[in-house]
Amino acid sequence: MENFTFWSPTEFVFGRDTESRTGELASRCGAKKVMLLFGGGSAERSGLLPRIRTSLKEQGIDYVDFGGIRPNPTADKVYEGIEVARRENVDFLLAVGGGSVIDTAKAIALGAPTDVDFWKFYNGEAMPQTAMPVGVVLTIPAAGSEGSGNSVITNEKTLQKISVRYPMLLRPKFAVMNPELTMTLPAEQTAYGIVDMLCHIYERYFSNTPATELVDGYSEAIMRDVMDQAMTLRYQPDNYDARADVMWAGTLAHNGICGVGKTEDWASHRLEHEISAIYDVPHGAGLAVIVPAWMKFCAKRNPDKLWKFAINVMAVDPTGHDTEEIISEGISRLEDFYHDLGLTTSMRELVGTEPDIDAMVKSLERNMGKVLGNYVPLSMEDCREIYHMAL
Amino acid sequence: MENFTFWSPTEFVFGRDTESRTGELASRCGAKKVMLLFGGGSAERSGLLPRIRTSLKEQGIDYVDFGGIRPNPTADKVYEGIEVARRENVDFLLAVGGGSVIDTAKAIALGAPTDVDFWKFYNGEAMPQTAMPVGVVLTIPAAGSEGSGNSVITNEKTLQKISVRYPMLLRPKFAVMNPELTMTLPAEQTAYGIVDMLCHIYERYFSNTPATELVDGYSEAIMRDVMDQAMTLRYQPDNYDARADVMWAGTLAHNGICGVGKTEDWASHRLEHEISAIYDVPHGAGLAVIVPAWMKFCAKRNPDKLWKFAINVMAVDPTGHDTEEIISEGISRLEDFYHDLGLTTSMRELVGTEPDIDAMVKSLERNMGKVLGNYVPLSMEDCREIYHMAL
Repeated sequence: MENFTFWSPTEFVFGRDTESRTGELASRCGAKKVMLLFGGGSAERSGLLPRIRTSLKEQGIDYVDFGGIRPNPTADKVYEGIEVARRENVDFLLAVGGGSVIDTAKAIALGAPTDVDFWKFYNGEAMPQTAMPVGVVLTIPAAGSEGSGNSVITNEKTLQKISVRYPMLLRPKFAVMNPELTMTLPAEQTAYGIVDMLCHIYERYFSNTPATELVDGYSEAIMRDVMDQAMTLRYQPDNYDARADVMWAGTLAHNGICGVGKTEDWASHRLEHEISAIYDVPHGAGLAVIVPAWMKFCAKRNPDKLWKFAINVMAVDPTGHDTEEIISEGISRLEDFYHDLGLTTSMRELVGTEPDIDAMVKSLERNMGKVLGNYVPLSMEDCREIYHMAL
Repeated sequence: MENFTFWSPTEFVFGRDTESRTGELASRCGAKKVMLLFGGGSAERSGLLPRIRTSLKEQGIDYVDFGGIRPNPTADKVYEGIEVARRENVDFLLAVGGGSVIDTAKAIALGAPTDVDFWKFYNGEAMPQTAMPVGVVLTIPAAGSEGSGNSVITNEKTLQKISVRYPMLLRPKFAVMNPELTMTLPAEQTAYGIVDMLCHIYERYFSNTPATELVDGYSEAIMRDVMDQAMTLRYQPDNYDARADVMWAGTLAHNGICGVGKTEDWASHRLEHEISAIYDVPHGAGLAVIVPAWMKFCAKRNPDKLWKFAINVMAVDPTGHDTEEIISEGISRLEDFYHDLGLTTSMRELVGTEPDIDAMVKSLERNMGKVLGNYVPLSMEDCREIYHMAL
């Protein structure tokens, strides 16, 4: 195990009707004027936003709406939000939604208090010194942003999708997590979320750090349960307990607890970011395409953890089979799982055209440099091969 | 799953040489004068305390020593510490040790800022409103107090050993955790710690709350790994990776992550507290005696979780066996595990005399009322029976 620091100060308020406590939680953070960030109209129509506004009013907290945040959130929207936050003198950002809304709130939190262009905190040109406080009411379990110090923003001008990690600044103060709010998610959105949270664990699980039995063991347990609950939700989308497990797993997958003491990988996420940046497909859908291809590429180059994954997570019986067969069966079962979720594992099918792999590799090189990941360090030619394997 | 709030704001700084960062961490908490709490002379002789004092001095932090804290820490020592903290105007409590030292620091943290007798916060006569900040350099992985909001203090005058939980006040600000510091622990102290942390998980695992697959799954993974690493440490006490797993597991066992969404039990801890309060035996040694007896008592009354524990944690093969046999085998393997650790499962052997069960039950009734625990709610007669089964 390597040295690590684990600090997860977010207060998770989990369960039925917990959104009614939003005002009280914001008030405890000293909020006087809240910027209420959200996506489309569903949170309005479902009555969630009205309930949250009432809960803020009851605590004497003023607010300003900031809606219309789209999936794969953009730098333009962040600039717009920074202007609103300054003009309206808000002192607290309340994200009501999933990763896109939360990540936009985090980007505004970095950009609003300073004259530095926020994008410089993403492209590596500057380091943030401060951030506004962010709170969350989670409606889509997927990105794990409610408990992480991460934020991913797409810059349409430069076609860059960049993820940053500033845990000391960006961990939300609180996250309200009511599994009931996720029951009406479309099946494909539930599936994307499940693929995403599982991948947050893979990125940490597939590591060359030796002696990580403890963290591997509980990571495997979380992956197994998410896969079980995912199957329940295909046929019982309003199963509260399955929704609750998936929601809590999404947080554990990305708050760092599954990565303690390990060198993490993150190649799959970076490979995927190029797909969703160029073709604007859902991040989870892109991961379902990339992960099996990445695993196939790594199978011969570094089989150890893939073998363990096949047996301990995908329940492959190793008896009488060699390593290659075991890993291959594990990957095949993972592909079946994605198909059962209604997702494709073909990039061509996903983007509906012949993908421009040259453009993806070029962009990858510009964003990430010459080598990607750690489990198997990938050259740009390796990345090209993985994209081809994902076709 | 039940509604829950999970808030674990402690910064865990884990790994080799991390104690050299103590001064920096205390400084970040605004410490100007630190009360340095510790137990016997081993931390002095090993050079740990000198290293920590140097690290404080480097940050311009003044300190006052407060040593001599014994296992099963006492109210008398807390009163003494409160006086010192006030007289010396300390603004930060730094506990260097295990649960006894940390719990004493927490009790002083509650008592020093107020005129209310600190013991009233333990016996339920008063609720604390504030607490001084506490930091930790952990040397004994066991109690999990480095990440918990709990504290256990024994009052020798009243023969009461009482545990309190004030998570909003008592979670340490930081916990420095260097597994190397635990390599020289005597084998029996390592064993007591392992028994204690496992029991912190049992107390949460054995619950009647339905639909707890996720938390049960990762709790089982942690228990299995601790038992594996415990066997390694019997023969390789300086195995860094085994020490590291045990140390991190001790924190996860008691920071609440294994109890989210569940009604917890805590009968075994309360039954044990009477033994160690009267006979001053180590808490972990008392638990090794009580837990198997408690499990045997519960086996027929509420078999479900004991069956799952036997199969998923104690690796009992259920094929061809009925529930009773499976549970019985699971408990038998747990007893073997305790014996392998060098511990007795006989209360008579532990206390070296015929235990005064009447006195224990009487004290239990006074401290805890009429019913104990949740998995199987225990009457005082049930408790008496468990004590007899533990003889």
